[in-house]
Amino acid sequence: MEINIKEQEILDAARNRFAHYGFSKVTMDEIASDVGLGKASLYYYFPTKEELFKSVINEEQKLFVDEIEKLFCRKMSAENKLRNYVRKRLEYFRELVNLGTLNLHTLVDIKLMFKGLFEDFEQKELALIRKILDEGKINGEFDSKVNQTTTKIFLHLVQGLRLRIIKYNKDKRMDKDNYDELKEEMSVFIEIFVKGIKA
Amino acid sequence: MEINIKEQEILDAARNRFAHYGFSKVTMDEIASDVGLGKASLYYYFPTKEELFKSVINEEQKLFVDEIEKLFCRKMSAENKLRNYVRKRLEYFRELVNLGTLNLHTLVDIKLMFKGLFEDFEQKELALIRKILDEGKINGEFDSKVNQTTTKIFLHLVQGLRLRIIKYNKDKRMDKDNYDELKEEMSVFIEIFVKGIKA
Repeated sequence: MEINIKEQEILDAARNRFAHYGFSKVTMDEIASDVGLGKASLYYYFPTKEELFKSVINEEQKLFVDEIEKLFCRKMSAENKLRNYVRKRLEYFRELVNLGTLNLHTLVDIKLMFKGLFEDFEQKELALIRKILDEGKINGEFDSKVNQTTTKIFLHLVQGLRLRIIKYNKDKRMDKDNYDELKEEMSVFIEIFVKGIKA
Repeated sequence: MEINIKEQEILDAARNRFAHYGFSKVTMDEIASDVGLGKASLYYYFPTKEELFKSVINEEQKLFVDEIEKLFCRKMSAENKLRNYVRKRLEYFRELVNLGTLNLHTLVDIKLMFKGLFEDFEQKELALIRKILDEGKINGEFDSKVNQTTTKIFLHLVQGLRLRIIKYNKDKRMDKDNYDELKEEMSVFIEIFVKGIKA
């Protein structure tokens, strides 16, 4: 799907607004005015705020997948690719939380609203992780027993650590402390995991 | 806190009812009749159904902690203690879900209702896991870098896998498939983790 210049301009303005004020506080009027369009013209491109938001998220997901795919062209151990994956995935999580105005429960609502979008993304994530694990298996870094279940477990462990932060978060917001905690947990986790699947 | 015979009888009857019909569907009348008490007498022991339920959960938690503590008296590698921990913790989780009538979202509500109870339990879990990890460190099974953060991560990874099942569960119930999935995930996870912290 090609995105034309005006659409891209709208998406950039919307991402900017959402990241600053969160989904619920942003109006279509504001976005229209940011890009010098009348409201009617904006609705021509995106019939609802939800549609616009969905496109912003979709774009963010694509950027993340692109970043990870770029790793495959680099001379780097599979082990380091997996480390990079976890690091970049955490950054992407933070961005997504920011789009929903740092409110973690909004994020859960958003995921329910755009279920299909997140399910597709999960399939892409699985494919990327699998590619990294397979690479490490082929080049002898990882255990030959590494398989599809290992891929799934890896994804689920990472998802679980994020979910815990969302669930047990007292004021339902993601502040710097939560992020730092998650970051530390991810970095300890990835070292144990990498060692745990070594050949 | 000593529990007298009548109280124990009530707790057993209540656990039985909750496990079969779930917290919301059980009445105090039914429990009173199970143990041959008038409702007024039952209220003497437990002023509310919530109090009674809390005591049932408290007892289940104690049984779990006792079971794990028994592991420490046995001649067994720390590695196997950790495997046992994960297995028994999963069984305890299933029991807890059953008490809330297999509805995973009820479980979340229950946890909110009895926050203190679950927070205490988490501290106990941390202490038990730490003891196993320390034992393995001292006897040379585990890496000398294993520390409090490793303990925390271990707990959070296990919690995260459970939470994922709760969160992504389509019909909000825990059926045999969910349980089997979680069981498989836990067993793959524990092998990777154990290898990942080996000396």
